[in-house]
Amino acid sequence: MPAHFGPRPFSTKASGWYRDVTSMVVSFVTDREQLGRYLPSPFRVAEEAVVTITYACNRQVDWLAGNGYNLVAVSAAADFIGEQETLSGDYALVMWENLTDPILTGRELQGIPKVYADIQDHTVLHGDWHTSASHFGHKFLDLDVSNLRDPSEDEIAADAAARLGRDNPMAWRLYPGVGGFGESINEYTTFPSENRITDAWVGEGEARWQHLSWEQNPTQFHIINALADLPVLEWRPAVVVKGSTNLVVAERLPRVIN
Amino acid sequence: MPAHFGPRPFSTKASGWYRDVTSMVVSFVTDREQLGRYLPSPFRVAEEAVVTITYACNRQVDWLAGNGYNLVAVSAAADFIGEQETLSGDYALVMWENLTDPILTGRELQGIPKVYADIQDHTVLHGDWHTSASHFGHKFLDLDVSNLRDPSEDEIAADAAARLGRDNPMAWRLYPGVGGFGESINEYTTFPSENRITDAWVGEGEARWQHLSWEQNPTQFHIINALADLPVLEWRPAVVVKGSTNLVVAERLPRVIN
Amino acid sequence: MPAHFGPRPFSTKASGWYRDVTSMVVSFVTDREQLGRYLPSPFRVAEEAVVTITYACNRQVDWLAGNGYNLVAVSAAADFIGEQETLSGDYALVMWENLTDPILTGRELQGIPKVYADIQDHTVLHGDWHTSASHFGHKFLDLDVSNLRDPSEDEIAADAAARLGRDNPMAWRLYPGVGGFGESINEYTTFPSENRITDAWVGEGEARWQHLSWEQNPTQFHIINALADLPVLEWRPAVVVKGSTNLVVAERLPRVIN
Amino acid sequence: MPAHFGPRPFSTKASGWYRDVTSMVVSFVTDREQLGRYLPSPFRVAEEAVVTITYACNRQVDWLAGNGYNLVAVSAAADFIGEQETLSGDYALVMWENLTDPILTGRELQGIPKVYADIQDHTVLHGDWHTSASHFGHKFLDLDVSNLRDPSEDEIAADAAARLGRDNPMAWRLYPGVGGFGESINEYTTFPSENRITDAWVGEGEARWQHLSWEQNPTQFHIINALADLPVLEWRPAVVVKGSTNLVVAERLPRVIN
Repeated sequence: MPAHFGPRPFSTKASGWYRDVTSMVVSFVTDREQLGRYLPSPFRVAEEAVVTITYACNRQVDWLAGNGYNLVAVSAAADFIGEQETLSGDYALVMWENLTDPILTGRELQGIPKVYADIQDHTVLHGDWHTSASHFGHKFLDLDVSNLRDPSEDEIAADAAARLGRDNPMAWRLYPGVGGFGESINEYTTFPSENRITDAWVGEGEARWQHLSWEQNPTQFHIINALADLPVLEWRPAVVVKGSTNLVVAERLPRVIN
Repeated sequence: MPAHFGPRPFSTKASGWYRDVTSMVVSFVTDREQLGRYLPSPFRVAEEAVVTITYACNRQVDWLAGNGYNLVAVSAAADFIGEQETLSGDYALVMWENLTDPILTGRELQGIPKVYADIQDHTVLHGDWHTSASHFGHKFLDLDVSNLRDPSEDEIAADAAARLGRDNPMAWRLYPGVGGFGESINEYTTFPSENRITDAWVGEGEARWQHLSWEQNPTQFHIINALADLPVLEWRPAVVVKGSTNLVVAERLPRVIN
Repeated sequence: MPAHFGPRPFSTKASGWYRDVTSMVVSFVTDREQLGRYLPSPFRVAEEAVVTITYACNRQVDWLAGNGYNLVAVSAAADFIGEQETLSGDYALVMWENLTDPILTGRELQGIPKVYADIQDHTVLHGDWHTSASHFGHKFLDLDVSNLRDPSEDEIAADAAARLGRDNPMAWRLYPGVGGFGESINEYTTFPSENRITDAWVGEGEARWQHLSWEQNPTQFHIINALADLPVLEWRPAVVVKGSTNLVVAERLPRVIN
Repeated sequence: MPAHFGPRPFSTKASGWYRDVTSMVVSFVTDREQLGRYLPSPFRVAEEAVVTITYACNRQVDWLAGNGYNLVAVSAAADFIGEQETLSGDYALVMWENLTDPILTGRELQGIPKVYADIQDHTVLHGDWHTSASHFGHKFLDLDVSNLRDPSEDEIAADAAARLGRDNPMAWRLYPGVGGFGESINEYTTFPSENRITDAWVGEGEARWQHLSWEQNPTQFHIINALADLPVLEWRPAVVVKGSTNLVVAERLPRVIN
């Protein structure tokens, strides 16, 4: 929307490529039952109840004519249990972005639960990486990664193995009816991407959430507080990655009988 | 979305009231045929082919916990021709806002074609009112109102008469399918509001558009250029209004057989 | 600076008037000795060791061509003890503003210790007023005023009396030499203004500071922490004021022999 | 300022290093006489009347705790004619930055004529580099570089030769007295830096200025219009550079008898 001006004209310069992406990835093991409360029924928490928080500084984005934006995504390792098939991947709990354009296309074409936040460009200070996210002036997240080193051969192999058959981001595309009543759309999606890594380091990371009130963030406080309440049983190694990403067209997951 | 955290908890302090709204309203008569190209079939350009550009500085918005935002809306005087009934009002061509939260709810609950822009707080300088809108650093609109005076009795009466049976904002709620293919939702809506005016002045106004390229605004240039190309046959008196607005729940317009 | 393009040309529309100013004023009694540490020698903490925190939403500023900005000022009730004369007023401890232009003129023409912060437009929600200030993504101040009522006759009279001979904002204009060595300028100033109040209410207010680290705010953390450490012995009644302000030309205070 | 909280405490992590700097440099030959109008008397336009426009995307700035900012600097090739010595370099005509903190230190410690602008992060799209600068919502500069290639051996040698004895940025540190009357400081400075280049390309560049009115940019329109009026006799090859920069302490140039 608006649709009456015709489809958005695409330049021959547009593509799915994000040509300059820098990411900080922090993950932790949490309580399986508590995490499971936030997964709709065709999804099940994966064998390991891992929550992943990804900050990405996206630059040189072709479809945005070379402009960029920052995002903070939170996902849960999960299996989609379809009627006849199962898909293992990461279920999108929420994705904050600091630019409205990809929020709209992500919500509407892919069903990704994107919302807005002011996300600072990451800082790097003597090897310590940091970013934070706020909305309406109230900070809700600090993200730190430090003590970076090159990954070992074993880590590279383990990472490659872990991605095999698991690198499927998934989401729940749910639109209410006009005025908020009923449902207009209710389906599940997967939105794969192709990633080329030029640099990767392993280190220690941490995410620190701040509980907020309705008065402080009336549209997102319940999301933030739910995430802040997830217990951290164990921090996993954090990762910093540089490279590029090509968004592939999203697909609808097979319909399930709930 | 995200839906898995449950419905957004509403505070008892939330309501539909925008308690402090300042608006500049500029309108002009344009070419009927050219304007008609942007109205989907159940809509017809009204007897007078009037395009209205409304800037609003919304403050003290209850559902945003007292926060606010600015908007620039462009609409066409139009009649909705249903199978059995007709509704006269203003068809939403596009609405720019400088806050993502109301963009999402407006698109998803009401079908309003909202997109993002940096919209300056209006300036007032010795009776001259001004604002402008940009995206990705490129300005596309300047809006001016000046020579304000109190409205005459006749103008007040004419305005009241004009609103009778015409104060219906309408929109086309069209969502594509996953990945952008096909359609998930295709319907028409109306989203009435209750307005309380505390101050109103009449003056002269003007909107100046800048044509932009895909490189300058890859997501909106076709919208901006279409509006910039509408001929201005005659500027109507401009209006500055202060007051408050209560958003009423949007409704679906009766289905039509296209 | 730059000076080589000649003096900034003034429009006939420019003046010292800020035509639309909304302020929240919160003040408290603190420890006299601790506050005194931050006053240079010709200043002495006033009989009552009162610190005042003023948020102002400045709009329709003539010299900015009708644009506006927000500020948060912190000042100490103080007496300037000159060789031959004494001036009672408020010594400027720090002033945050969210626009660079008045920061530069305020520092350079008046010696006001202005620095930058992201200062939210104030929210008003069912009678509760709020704003906050952040820099580099880290919030350092929340300011609240609530339970507003009309001032009593006695309060109006007491306020007028208190202003008599005390309404003198003062500052220390200190510039280092090139590279930061030595001093280029070292003097004291006063920068009076003319205020026209259209509305005023009295209520309860509170300022909540957050201690920050160098990593969080490398240019201001020492200021913020000093203010956060001032003990609050008693909150004074808070005030919300609407009106306009005319900046009068700043003056140098009589030289003192230190 | 403020000075009463003591000197800004420096972390051991602070230094003069800007560890991640990406620059677009565009220069042109202009009319010698017209350019000379903007140089104060001890400066003389260099043999070639070259104006250089530099955009820099500064990241990982140590003294800002790893934060960064963008700048657009305009300088004139010039010779400082002292009583006993001459210094060849680039005289700072104006420097826009999108962060107030370095604007204050640059003006006050070095005398650089820094002012604020919204400066877009540069975009890169299929080899075309672009940025733009605005203030108060009104764009005043577009900067483009394209057709980049590796520099030739000759170009590298010529560049090194040109820098020999010429790499001296210089400025006029002029502060008025309190209230704007008279002068408090009037001197000339040089502010050298150490640059490490990791990547460099040569291409074609262009700067496009927009004339603005006082109403559009009341604090800078005279600067912008003066620069927009400089005739472009010939564009020089443009350069894109990546690397790091270490700010060295600024020095005062030898006093001259005007």
